[in-house]
Amino acid sequence: MNSQEYPSRLLENAINELAKLPGIGKKTALRLVLHMIKWSNEEVEQFGTSFITLKNEVKRCKVCHNISDNETCDICSNTSRDNGIICVVENIRDVMSIEHTHQFNGLYHVLGGLISPMDGIGPADLTISSLIERIGSGEIKEVILALSTNMEGETTNFYIYRKIKDFPISISTIARGVGFGDELEYTDEITLGRSIKNRMPFEKTFGDNH
Amino acid sequence: MNSQEYPSRLLENAINELAKLPGIGKKTALRLVLHMIKWSNEEVEQFGTSFITLKNEVKRCKVCHNISDNETCDICSNTSRDNGIICVVENIRDVMSIEHTHQFNGLYHVLGGLISPMDGIGPADLTISSLIERIGSGEIKEVILALSTNMEGETTNFYIYRKIKDFPISISTIARGVGFGDELEYTDEITLGRSIKNRMPFEKTFGDNH
Ligand SMILES: [Zn+2]
Ligand SMILES: [Zn+2]
Repeated sequence: MNSQEYPSRLLENAINELAKLPGIGKKTALRLVLHMIKWSNEEVEQFGTSFITLKNEVKRCKVCHNISDNETCDICSNTSRDNGIICVVENIRDVMSIEHTHQFNGLYHVLGGLISPMDGIGPADLTISSLIERIGSGEIKEVILALSTNMEGETTNFYIYRKIKDFPISISTIARGVGFGDELEYTDEITLGRSIKNRMPFEKTFGDNH
Repeated sequence: MNSQEYPSRLLENAINELAKLPGIGKKTALRLVLHMIKWSNEEVEQFGTSFITLKNEVKRCKVCHNISDNETCDICSNTSRDNGIICVVENIRDVMSIEHTHQFNGLYHVLGGLISPMDGIGPADLTISSLIERIGSGEIKEVILALSTNMEGETTNFYIYRKIKDFPISISTIARGVGFGDELEYTDEITLGRSIKNRMPFEKTFGDNH
């Protein structure tokens, strides 16, 4: 072995692949791969192909940009939901968090990130123009801005607000049950559910954190 | 979504697969899969196939049972190593740990586990008969028993000792630098290296822990 760290290049390769995932070091990857090697061929095949199939076949909902197995996601195509309300969120994990609270029965709009000049993310990198189109379609009564209460969330809130404030809709933001700087996805369900329920007109928040 | 936890069955499937790995919960798996989805198709393909290729193509060395890309592993086929000494270990992680200390230049024998009646693992489930064959070949001068110092390690030590004590070889065990009950693979390199260097005749340890 000497200069080589692993007894097999195939093993080393699998470890290196697993260690590309965030938070998985080489040592953990080794432990996981050695565990995996005890599975049957079929189990490993199923494991490996699950990611390839996901990547190749998963879609983005053409309405809300949520992850979906079909052209239009289950939420957007659910006729029992109120399609007059759009809840604007950063990512699909936020959709899942809010769905989990069972406090919201409208539709979503997944931005795909937040405006962050530091990270080189501008409005054009997000699905903001698609949101404006949706609102322009005329069926929307209310837009809830449900972004994280950090600097990027605030910036994005204001950017979107300026773009949509002249539409005949009410614009609300989730009630601030959580402190400035908190990430939405780490907020507990009760706080998050309450924040959705007690949402307030966006204008009322002017000056809150500024 | 309602009764469904994830917005996509493909996503759910990939999460469930990843969560089969020890220590990876559903929440972590979700985070990892959402990270992975941002990779290119080629990167995900490479990731997924690495495990399948490993499982399909990796071999066990026919001499020492270490994991290997060839019939005989790099250690066993390395002519600069002393093939008169066999270091008996539980698993391939122990091989890697000992190699890492650079204190040992002999060969290994990977048992594939330890005798554990509680877990239903008996001597026949391990590569003990193969070890006896190797010793019987006559080229072996010394066998080092380098098993964990827990109950299963002690049991396995005694079992093997009884089987090989009549061969014209010296039988040593790694110096106990570590307390009774410690797992070999979690032992730090220095302690482990020293234990290999200061190995002692197995008989001297009789009564140490009993
Ligand atoms: Zn949708
Ligand atoms: Zn070998």
